[in-house]
Order: sequence, then C-alpha cells, then structure tokens
Amino acid sequence: MKVTMQRVNKAVHFIAYGSDGHSILMDGSEAIGGEGKGVRPMETVLMGLAGCSSIDMVMILDKMRQKLEDIRIEVVAERADEVPAVFTKIHVSFFLKGDLKEKKVAQAVDMAFQKYCSVSKMLEPTVEITSSYVINEVEES
Amino acid sequence: MKVTMQRVNKAVHFIAYGSDGHSILMDGSEAIGGEGKGVRPMETVLMGLAGCSSIDMVMILDKMRQKLEDIRIEVVAERADEVPAVFTKIHVSFFLKGDLKEKKVAQAVDMAFQKYCSVSKMLEPTVEITSSYVINEVEES
Repeated sequence: MKVTMQRVNKAVHFIAYGSDGHSILMDGSEAIGGEGKGVRPMETVLMGLAGCSSIDMVMILDKMRQKLEDIRIEVVAERADEVPAVFTKIHVSFFLKGDLKEKKVAQAVDMAFQKYCSVSKMLEPTVEITSSYVINEVEES
Repeated sequence: MKVTMQRVNKAVHFIAYGSDGHSILMDGSEAIGGEGKGVRPMETVLMGLAGCSSIDMVMILDKMRQKLEDIRIEVVAERADEVPAVFTKIHVSFFLKGDLKEKKVAQAVDMAFQKYCSVSKMLEPTVEITSSYVINEVEES
C-alpha cells in the first residue's frame, strides 16, 4: 500500500493521494499555522478507524443475514495535553437502521473490534478504545 | 476531536466529516465489495502519518531557519497476510527542496518521529516505522 502527498501552500496545507488516485485535503490547526483548508492529520486516523470498523460491521451483519438499511458513525477522541498529543481515549458510536437483532449487532461490534478492524488493532496498545451502538434510534448499550 | 461518517451506498462507500466540515470519501477494496469510490481506511492512516510528520518537519525546519521551498512525501507500507491485516512496516520518504543543511534536515526528521508526530507515536509499538530523505533530488540517507 502506498500514498503520496504534496504541499499545496507555504503553510501546512497538503494534498494526499491514495492508490486509486483519490485525494484528500489536509491542513494543520490554526495554532500551528494551518488555515482550515482540509482535514487534520489526526482526524484522518479517526476516519480510518470509523471506516474500517464500519466496513467490518457491514460485512459481518451481511454474513449474519441481518438487514442493515443504513449506518452512521460518530467517533470522539481525547488527546494528551502534552507533545506528542496522542489519543488517550477513543469512543466509536454506531447508529444503525434496519431489521436487526440486538444480539447480532452486539456480536458484530465485538467481532469488528476484537478480530477484524486493522486500525483498531494497531491503536489498541496505546489508546483506550470503546464502542456503543444505537439501533433504530433506541439506545441498546 | 470528533469525526462523523455516513454510508453513501449499499456497499461500503462512506463520506467522513472532520471538525471543520471538510469531508473525505472512503471505500473498501474490491475484494470486500468496494467500488473504488474513495480512499481506503488504511490509506487514511498512512495519510495521517504523512501529514503529521510533514507538518512537524515544516515547523521544525522553520524554527531552525532552514529555507524549505517545497516538500513531497511518499509512504509505503507492508501489511500482515492474515486478519487483522495490520501494517507491519511503514517507510516514510521526504523529498525536500530548498536551501537546506543536510545535518539540520537529519535532526528535523529525528525530532519529528522521536518527539512530535502523534500518529507515529501511536503506531510505533506495533509497526516498524522507518524514514529517509532526499534534498534537492540528491539522496542524502
């Protein structure tokens, strides 16, 4: 897997390219000279965690023959006060819609984080990662 | 720090939003039903590593009064063959242009990875991360 990145301006605005040619815009926070022209690098890590765990959820629920109609994700993270400002805690919330059995969803979340999600597995040793889910807007756990 | 994500289609295509409202498109690989409509979640992690280490490089070289005119980055990663397909090795290459002293660049790279880059610090315990740099297209290390 390979990505490339190029600076866009003299501050800290960059454009990064993935292997399929898709690009994303990145920028630093204002505190370090950024101008809000893209997502922040640490945000892309949270997006990666959201993406990989959600793709796993979609695949696992499909294998379980659960009818997932929609999925929305929120990821909230706390960072260390000092440099390096690593994440100390991350919470991933899944908001699911569909004809879903609560027990199956609970199993799918467990499997996603315990077995499949590569991003979670890499962060696990240094970050406390927790998760929860809401099915059809009724909070289940 | 908070990010949100929403599924775009019935496969595994998602749109993720950062705190400033900037969005990125994500999709899974074809092997798992993706359709190449966005960057892959694991790529976003590499982009985050590229972004945070490069922003650190820009800031450190500026403090060192080194005149950086341009910076381009390549990140190449190897993944585990089995699930979870975590990164096993990541190499970050910096291609720098400007009136730069080689010794200062070497120090800046060291400081970025040893002290400042949050993404690198979080991945370090599980992934072997190496780096190199090229100044004005003459390979220095």
